[in-house]
Amino acid sequence: MEPAIILVRPQLGMNIGMVARAMANFGLSDLRLVAPRDGWPNPDAGPPAAGADHVLASARVFATVGEALADCHLSYATAFRPRDVQKPVRTPREAAAEMRGSPAKAGILFGPERSGLATDDIVTVQTLVTIPADPGFASLNLAQAVLVLAYEWFLASAVPPASPERVPAPQADLEGLIGQLNDALAETGYFFPPQRTRATQRTLAGILAAARFTADEIRTLRGVIRALSRPRPPGRD
Amino acid sequence: MEPAIILVRPQLGMNIGMVARAMANFGLSDLRLVAPRDGWPNPDAGPPAAGADHVLASARVFATVGEALADCHLSYATAFRPRDVQKPVRTPREAAAEMRGSPAKAGILFGPERSGLATDDIVTVQTLVTIPADPGFASLNLAQAVLVLAYEWFLASAVPPASPERVPAPQADLEGLIGQLNDALAETGYFFPPQRTRATQRTLAGILAAARFTADEIRTLRGVIRALSRPRPPGRD
Repeated sequence: MEPAIILVRPQLGMNIGMVARAMANFGLSDLRLVAPRDGWPNPDAGPPAAGADHVLASARVFATVGEALADCHLSYATAFRPRDVQKPVRTPREAAAEMRGSPAKAGILFGPERSGLATDDIVTVQTLVTIPADPGFASLNLAQAVLVLAYEWFLASAVPPASPERVPAPQADLEGLIGQLNDALAETGYFFPPQRTRATQRTLAGILAAARFTADEIRTLRGVIRALSRPRPPGRD
Repeated sequence: MEPAIILVRPQLGMNIGMVARAMANFGLSDLRLVAPRDGWPNPDAGPPAAGADHVLASARVFATVGEALADCHLSYATAFRPRDVQKPVRTPREAAAEMRGSPAKAGILFGPERSGLATDDIVTVQTLVTIPADPGFASLNLAQAVLVLAYEWFLASAVPPASPERVPAPQADLEGLIGQLNDALAETGYFFPPQRTRATQRTLAGILAAARFTADEIRTLRGVIRALSRPRPPGRD
């Protein structure tokens, strides 16, 4: 199944058009935009798409990264170096082989032109993808980064994985689990001091994302959290 | 040794700038321009280079493909499918491995944005490089095509060839041989009818290019042509 190309807060319509062309060059068509700066559709995207109009026409806009990834079981974020969040790092070639080897839908995040992805964008992503490049000049144009991933996906052979596939739940299930855990912990006073709340939530979300739980496992875990959160009979505390 | 990236009759300064950025991303800096449409330097190239100013500043302009390739021992032309000229075809990955495995200077031709390389541009090139892509939408943006070659070159490991290297002569030697042969044949009336001259010359040039003669071999062959072209004593014809 082809991966979704997800542009997070893209700035220039021209770059979105070039992304569409690069996708079409390698047989991709699932383009998703998270909060594009200049809205959508954007007439600047047309000419550089050079005929990849079907990609632009079917592009979908989402308000958040979580919504754009909701149906994706495998999630990747392109980042030049691992941030403070600890995650496995793959090359484009390795990520392409993994996507080709899985029957599950994948989504790949690409950050805005100037700043790249924010830490909060990648907290719940399973895997980082780092494009090998000259360390002295490692920042690729947005469409060039998409091209590398699309090219490697096109070339990767569809070899099934050696071991039976363990399909991670769609991202929406993971987000639901994280939300439930945060709410349950908030009621217990776990997040203290308050100014550390977000950092602690990030750490927990990162741990849960890295586990690549299946949908069944997430259902079980949500039941566990529900059980733990039940009001206790007095005197048993 | 890093390959030269040779843009043949590039049209848009913006694309030249994006090429420079893509080159710098992967450690390349030898940019050559053959008859750029809008002259050189071109201020439109600056912003999209995004800091790869050293590549633009050291770019060199040539009048012909032959001059741009003159010092190159390995010559490649990016083309989506083999033309009427028969030449070996490599993928970018194969070409990158070949370049990494050779101590000799290589040059890679990229055609103009709209039309791609003309048949005459590639007659004396040794090898075609075809970027694998969706056959229904196979035309890459110029900078995207350069990126694929630069990326593969960056990733290719520098494995020395298994057999002792046979270094082809620099392109200037090959062009000299072809010119001498054409002149010698013209004097004999070989090219007939006149309207077939260019096609016949192309065929011969293609044969000589594919042979990848060394510099020593070309010296020998030029002596052979000289000998064959000597005025014959009367009566021995």
